[in-house]
Amino acid sequence: MTGARGKAPEGAKPTLAVVGATGAVGTVMLELLSTRRDVWGEIRLIASHRSAGRRLVVRGQETTVLPLTAEVFDGVDVAMFDVPDEVSAEWAEVAVAAGAVVVDNSGAFRMDPDVPLVVPEVNASVARKRPKGIIANPNCTTLSMIVAIGALHRAYVLESLVVASYQAASGAGQAGIDTLYDQIAKVAGHRELGTRAGDVRRIVDDDLGPFAAPLAMNVVPWVGSAGADGWTSEELKVRNESRKILGLPDLPVSATCVRVPVVTGHSLAVHARFKRPIELPKVYELLRDSSGVLLFDDPSHQEFPTPADVVGTDPTWVGRLRIALDDPQALDLFVCGDNLRKGAALNTAQIAEVVAEDFMAVATA
Amino acid sequence: MTGARGKAPEGAKPTLAVVGATGAVGTVMLELLSTRRDVWGEIRLIASHRSAGRRLVVRGQETTVLPLTAEVFDGVDVAMFDVPDEVSAEWAEVAVAAGAVVVDNSGAFRMDPDVPLVVPEVNASVARKRPKGIIANPNCTTLSMIVAIGALHRAYVLESLVVASYQAASGAGQAGIDTLYDQIAKVAGHRELGTRAGDVRRIVDDDLGPFAAPLAMNVVPWVGSAGADGWTSEELKVRNESRKILGLPDLPVSATCVRVPVVTGHSLAVHARFKRPIELPKVYELLRDSSGVLLFDDPSHQEFPTPADVVGTDPTWVGRLRIALDDPQALDLFVCGDNLRKGAALNTAQIAEVVAEDFMAVATA
Repeated sequence: MTGARGKAPEGAKPTLAVVGATGAVGTVMLELLSTRRDVWGEIRLIASHRSAGRRLVVRGQETTVLPLTAEVFDGVDVAMFDVPDEVSAEWAEVAVAAGAVVVDNSGAFRMDPDVPLVVPEVNASVARKRPKGIIANPNCTTLSMIVAIGALHRAYVLESLVVASYQAASGAGQAGIDTLYDQIAKVAGHRELGTRAGDVRRIVDDDLGPFAAPLAMNVVPWVGSAGADGWTSEELKVRNESRKILGLPDLPVSATCVRVPVVTGHSLAVHARFKRPIELPKVYELLRDSSGVLLFDDPSHQEFPTPADVVGTDPTWVGRLRIALDDPQALDLFVCGDNLRKGAALNTAQIAEVVAEDFMAVATA
Repeated sequence: MTGARGKAPEGAKPTLAVVGATGAVGTVMLELLSTRRDVWGEIRLIASHRSAGRRLVVRGQETTVLPLTAEVFDGVDVAMFDVPDEVSAEWAEVAVAAGAVVVDNSGAFRMDPDVPLVVPEVNASVARKRPKGIIANPNCTTLSMIVAIGALHRAYVLESLVVASYQAASGAGQAGIDTLYDQIAKVAGHRELGTRAGDVRRIVDDDLGPFAAPLAMNVVPWVGSAGADGWTSEELKVRNESRKILGLPDLPVSATCVRVPVVTGHSLAVHARFKRPIELPKVYELLRDSSGVLLFDDPSHQEFPTPADVVGTDPTWVGRLRIALDDPQALDLFVCGDNLRKGAALNTAQIAEVVAEDFMAVATA
């Protein structure tokens, strides 16, 4: 085990740094840190110089946000990063050099072979193999399905994945949330919209925020930036991260990532093919027994996951389970998760807690 | 050829009846009849007794809506039906008995082996084989993708389809449109929504209209009614109608149908596997040359189809073309079409025009 210095006095709890404390994910992180089992000693809140000095509440205590500097990591045992890729790329190593284990939620390190990509319900053990002292947190879209897919893979052995996403505005951060609220306010009351091309575009006045097209009263089949061969960065992340987390480097994955006018809550329609034939009663049983999964699949009682019903909750909700009518080894399902919680802050917190437990075990050994 | 009586005087144009003239699709139909090549003699507008007596404009002329009775079909050559399944089931045969060819947009006859299911760009010739005098118009979701899929199938031979839909409120008729406008007006300005489960449900005050869950700021993975084995009627329609239109009775199709808060414009993420390997430049070429298809695929210039940009137009817009990274015979794409036009009124009008041409040819023979 590398990282966690293990030099804390006996019984001491590790010191945590939250880098990016003022963003959309940071806000949820403070809420989680205030309500989850408290494994932390000091919690230091850190943000850009622009946001430093703000006072935020964590564990019931007002705390001043510190600016991101090298010194701020002095004495930090675990540092969570939720910042843009380039900020993580620059600062994660600074935190590691200061002795911290970094849990990073950017895309900077996810595909680095020396950085484990961890979803505790699926591959917690790899969190302990971190030659760079960095553990990566997956992309929110991958995370919104992978706990359920991992559980199914353990039982049936995954052979291929075809997914289409319904991604919320908050996946693009606070700017995404604000843009959607603004656009909905603009289109509301216009009961003529939705009959002529371009009307919505004119009403939202080209204030697209972080999106590639109007999002209110629309869906936008473009998330992230351009990757190779027509694929977006987001679609490639879903493919490459799923492969790495599941330990299936050759898994065929096709993803189409689409933004929808939902504030928070990513959904995915998944067509998963397995090596073994599937029996629905057994699938229900195994999903009911899977940590981090909530089976919600009784359409006759209006039970299927929707983002509005899932937002603010921890599990991956799974519904609409159907065996493909023409392929007894393929399963169609609809999954839904809070992209700011399990899709970001919660998974980061879970990874950090795994590290904290090791730290405490060493400290008290 | 059965149907079209062929007893009109030389040069006379056929008489058309529009049954369901006052609905969401009927409204678009009147607009289409007013702007397309005018192949019709008299146009008779028909609706339920409740809506009869209203005056609507078609071809610039105010016309009184007649109530649905047997007598209203006297002298009618072609009758378009856009009414609920049970109304078509009862009245289509009445119109046929009166001598009309019926073009029906309900689900009542689509899978009847004696009723052709027609998309003129794909299988126009089967419109002439109509032993019952009835031609069926496909479901709007199938129609929103099938012209593009048909063109690809002709070149590469389709082997399987996995689709996920992003379906507009107007697919549920005027009640769907009104419900979405109402819900958007209610959620607008509530900048706290989208963080806690159930908040949107409380705000829309359980006025769900024809939907199974709140639609504003949400997506609803349930369209239609319960079919067998967890599939919805809508998902089964996509599968069964695609098979029938393409003449591929054993085609494996998995669909997940999801309603999104868009007024009009159905979108689909499609993963299509073919018997032959695919070359993207040839796909571009064939789609550019395909009638009824608009290739719109240059993300570097923000060119990808979205419902807000497609609504009110005729073609099936195709973008986000990608060859599957792990399967050279599979293509991923995003298609978008106006569910009230090509998805309903336009395709019905095109079928009726095929019949009208035959009628004129007989009349002048």
